Amino acid sequence: MEREHLVKAFDEELRTVTDRVVEMGARVERLFDAAVDALVDGDINRASNLVIEDAQIDALDAEVEEAAIHVIARRQPVAADLREIFSAVRIAADLERVGDLSKNIAKRAVLLGHDRPKPGTTTVLEDMAVFAKKQLHDVIDAYINGDSVKAEAVLNGDVELDTYYSACFRQLITYMMEDTRSITSCAHLLHVAKSVERVGDHATNIAEYVLFRVKGEIPRGRPKGADLEDVLARDLGKGA
Amino acid sequence: MEREHLVKAFDEELRTVTDRVVEMGARVERLFDAAVDALVDGDINRASNLVIEDAQIDALDAEVEEAAIHVIARRQPVAADLREIFSAVRIAADLERVGDLSKNIAKRAVLLGHDRPKPGTTTVLEDMAVFAKKQLHDVIDAYINGDSVKAEAVLNGDVELDTYYSACFRQLITYMMEDTRSITSCAHLLHVAKSVERVGDHATNIAEYVLFRVKGEIPRGRPKGADLEDVLARDLGKGA
Repeated sequence: MEREHLVKAFDEELRTVTDRVVEMGARVERLFDAAVDALVDGDINRASNLVIEDAQIDALDAEVEEAAIHVIARRQPVAADLREIFSAVRIAADLERVGDLSKNIAKRAVLLGHDRPKPGTTTVLEDMAVFAKKQLHDVIDAYINGDSVKAEAVLNGDVELDTYYSACFRQLITYMMEDTRSITSCAHLLHVAKSVERVGDHATNIAEYVLFRVKGEIPRGRPKGADLEDVLARDLGKGA
Repeated sequence: MEREHLVKAFDEELRTVTDRVVEMGARVERLFDAAVDALVDGDINRASNLVIEDAQIDALDAEVEEAAIHVIARRQPVAADLREIFSAVRIAADLERVGDLSKNIAKRAVLLGHDRPKPGTTTVLEDMAVFAKKQLHDVIDAYINGDSVKAEAVLNGDVELDTYYSACFRQLITYMMEDTRSITSCAHLLHVAKSVERVGDHATNIAEYVLFRVKGEIPRGRPKGADLEDVLARDLGKGA
């Protein structure tokens, strides 16, 4: 009975850690969606209100870490349990960054303010954001269900986001050349496009830790040579 | 004697972890320096050669994590030792990102290629990079020496980097408006400026974990309201 009690208490503590990560995931997803919507709709009020959401996500990240250290110190877990805790901490760190990026997108929406670029400027950016949202949603799903197939699919999807970024870069550069008055707003949008691309990078980092948790292999970085800059070089070489 | 032997073995394992982090720090510092130099000098060959350096840094990050999990599983450390290991893992993750950013700066140098902007375009960016290098160097020093005063100084220095970015943003926007043929190269430089600013953000993340290791307080995020976008809003409001 005593042993059973201990195991149960440990399981509950472990679940406190993973539940926090899942809660973070849900909040981060909502924040990213809302920030992109506020940017596209030019809704400055909504964008301003999103900034405080990020603080709550930061607090959850700190809670995950605190709970993880607590569990390790008290329960001295090994093998699969230790991997579970480790991946939770790394995933929380990535989610926290996605929260930061979303907050920064909201702040760029405020910066853009009434100096909005003409309609059509954000078409590629919007498609790109839809894809990034899907990557983020899928990887959180993969974490919740320990679904390594879905995690692999997220890893493989990242190159598509790089292609979107490259298309977005060329679209915005073209607008800047056509109308110099749009340069400042397009520069902000270029930055937002980069943030969206980075949300995708964090989704792949998370996918790697989902795989680590399931399979026990330490992620050693994605295959090199498929960086965003390589996609840009390919596309710009074709003539922007 | 047995206990003494165990303690010694544990200390050695712990040192394997922290030594790897210190080695990563030295390599990352060199890579960042070299990438910025290659960009400013327009040295495409040198920039191309830097890409492989980053793979070695990624491998070290994986080694830190592997060694950390190994030590936790075998030795079941608590309190200060556990903090030591935890901060090593988080710092290694930040250094790995700085390595990625440096590699991406090198790749943008290749993209810029012979389509270089006219002299003077990168003056603010160069000053900014010098400051970021100092932040990175100081925080690695603070980690090696467990120097919380230096770590605090790095935390306080980050706002200066945001101010540099804002100045750089305005300088590049001005060049773009003056000469539309410079738009593509200046867009790449804007992106490099953002990468340099992010190197600074990682330096502050590392500073927080140096403080965590020394003082035992989980970092709860920097004081909010001092984001890059806030500095931009202040400066652009004044009229770019």
